[in-house]
Amino acid sequence: MLRPIRWSDPWRCEVLDQTRLPFEEVWVRLDSAVACRAAISRMQVRGAPLIGAVGAFGLAFALREKPDDAALAESIRRMVSSRPTAVNLAWAVERVARLVRGRPMAERATAAWAEAVCIAEEDARGNATIGEHGAALLTPLKQPERPLRILTHCNAGWLATAGHGTALAPVYALHAAGVPVHVWVDETRPRNQGALTAWELGRAGVPHTVIADNAGGVLMMCGEVDVVIVGADRVAANGDVANKVGTYLKALAARANGIPCYVACPISTLDPSTRDGGAIVIEERHADEVTYVVGQADGGPVTRVRVVPEGSAVLNPAFDITPADLVTALITERGIVAATPAGIAAAVGGRR
Amino acid sequence: MLRPIRWSDPWRCEVLDQTRLPFEEVWVRLDSAVACRAAISRMQVRGAPLIGAVGAFGLAFALREKPDDAALAESIRRMVSSRPTAVNLAWAVERVARLVRGRPMAERATAAWAEAVCIAEEDARGNATIGEHGAALLTPLKQPERPLRILTHCNAGWLATAGHGTALAPVYALHAAGVPVHVWVDETRPRNQGALTAWELGRAGVPHTVIADNAGGVLMMCGEVDVVIVGADRVAANGDVANKVGTYLKALAARANGIPCYVACPISTLDPSTRDGGAIVIEERHADEVTYVVGQADGGPVTRVRVVPEGSAVLNPAFDITPADLVTALITERGIVAATPAGIAAAVGGRR
Repeated sequence: MLRPIRWSDPWRCEVLDQTRLPFEEVWVRLDSAVACRAAISRMQVRGAPLIGAVGAFGLAFALREKPDDAALAESIRRMVSSRPTAVNLAWAVERVARLVRGRPMAERATAAWAEAVCIAEEDARGNATIGEHGAALLTPLKQPERPLRILTHCNAGWLATAGHGTALAPVYALHAAGVPVHVWVDETRPRNQGALTAWELGRAGVPHTVIADNAGGVLMMCGEVDVVIVGADRVAANGDVANKVGTYLKALAARANGIPCYVACPISTLDPSTRDGGAIVIEERHADEVTYVVGQADGGPVTRVRVVPEGSAVLNPAFDITPADLVTALITERGIVAATPAGIAAAVGGRR
Repeated sequence: MLRPIRWSDPWRCEVLDQTRLPFEEVWVRLDSAVACRAAISRMQVRGAPLIGAVGAFGLAFALREKPDDAALAESIRRMVSSRPTAVNLAWAVERVARLVRGRPMAERATAAWAEAVCIAEEDARGNATIGEHGAALLTPLKQPERPLRILTHCNAGWLATAGHGTALAPVYALHAAGVPVHVWVDETRPRNQGALTAWELGRAGVPHTVIADNAGGVLMMCGEVDVVIVGADRVAANGDVANKVGTYLKALAARANGIPCYVACPISTLDPSTRDGGAIVIEERHADEVTYVVGQADGGPVTRVRVVPEGSAVLNPAFDITPADLVTALITERGIVAATPAGIAAAVGGRR
């Protein structure tokens, strides 16, 4: 299995440095709580599930360094603050902490490491299940004599998780089953996560083509897309989906052209405490992400170039809301979930 | 008036080198037919109306060099082939040729120069009229206590014409009339013509903000856009609009959010010989436009960086089709035209 994190018996853990991708494949050794926090805050690891796993390993390192309760509380605080908006990070760190709190000091670090491994394995296993459910759903959409043509946005693949990915899990499941697939990869400005998607599909041997974010509409209109699949950052109680900015435009085009639009995500992404998309605050990120483009000079180093004139203002909303009625269904590890209040409630109810 | 071409009594003509914008403002002297052809083929000038004007000046230079009929035919052929798909170029060059064919050799060059000036002035005048019609249409959309918030895509401003622009002509007319405006400027990947729009709005003192192409949908959903205005490369007989790729997605979002979407273009853009958008071939441009981003290294030269991994395929459709039913109306120099067969026929009928 391709994964961006690997570990061996305590205390060895490495992650793929995503700030160097897609140009250089560099593995970074994580051997302390500080190293794990830095990997998260520098975005060497990204994607909510992967950040959660690294946070869990980080807490294990922290407990090896100082196992007492006071140190534990401080370690949790520091780890969670390394990427404050990542809800999986707090969840994973708290899960490890809950496990060790009642234990003797001498056992805490080892137990925490085992729990971190468990969190990572569970994530990969859940994603594999998303892949199976998605593959069953998508297979009938394949037309004879050409591959199933999937359009995706941003990166919700194996790089963003402990394995398999979410939006791309069905793609990998189909590919593994020998079903011919072809993926249209949106560039995903301003941070160009599409380049990560292209790179990871390439590593997995999946045929794909990179397009500008502007091109998805015309491809759908010209009959070049069979299905749209994206991930999600949060799904509200009514089925509205918060995901990388630009998702909404592709969902509109899918609807206009009679193409199904699926959101693949773990059950943990469903948030019944958020009434609808209007209640989700759209994060604005730094203007530099739009002002500059990071890429590789010909034969040279990874560098950045300015693409916005000096003196022009920039706005950088990082997410958008896709209304539930544009979402054909959610693909989760528990199966296909309707993007409706009843569907979400039933799926989440089963979580308890 | 801000314009990307300036001339003084024969034979002095200069154009703003758009391959250096928005980073450097360099004027290029055009003093021969060869120089004019090179400026067109290297895309130092771009935008159909501007290309037409430069082609007309180029034919005047060619006639000064060799005024006989055989040379004229060859000069026309060469000039038109410097950017084969630009329909205005063939039109402008042929207009100059028609004028000089019956004249004595000695008068041809001077007459051609005068006609080139006339073509450029007519373009700017027509665009100013588009601006007036557009301003009258848009003024009622302005809400109290905030500027009229306009979203545009690509560059259809003064840089693309002999003056005023098409999509931006109403913006400049409103600004000149003291109506507060603010323009959301789509980056317009893959060629980033949004940077040209931002630069030219900045030169004109018009408040504006650059956004990623992905961001327009969420801004519309959040009530931050009052109107969408774009230009057009071609309008079919039924009102379908071919324009820079990504226009369709913004038109879909405008419709979904109850925002008017106007297309501003000269009557010459209406093509009654094209039945509908389905009859328009979508030009595919070179993959390098997606694979590389051109920008300015910090404090350094204009350079390009690779943003797509080696080994990934790329597709680069340059235009898309916005169905007529998403177009609120066309803004032309003859007034507001319905994007319907009857509207187009009436507007074009008046052209003869």
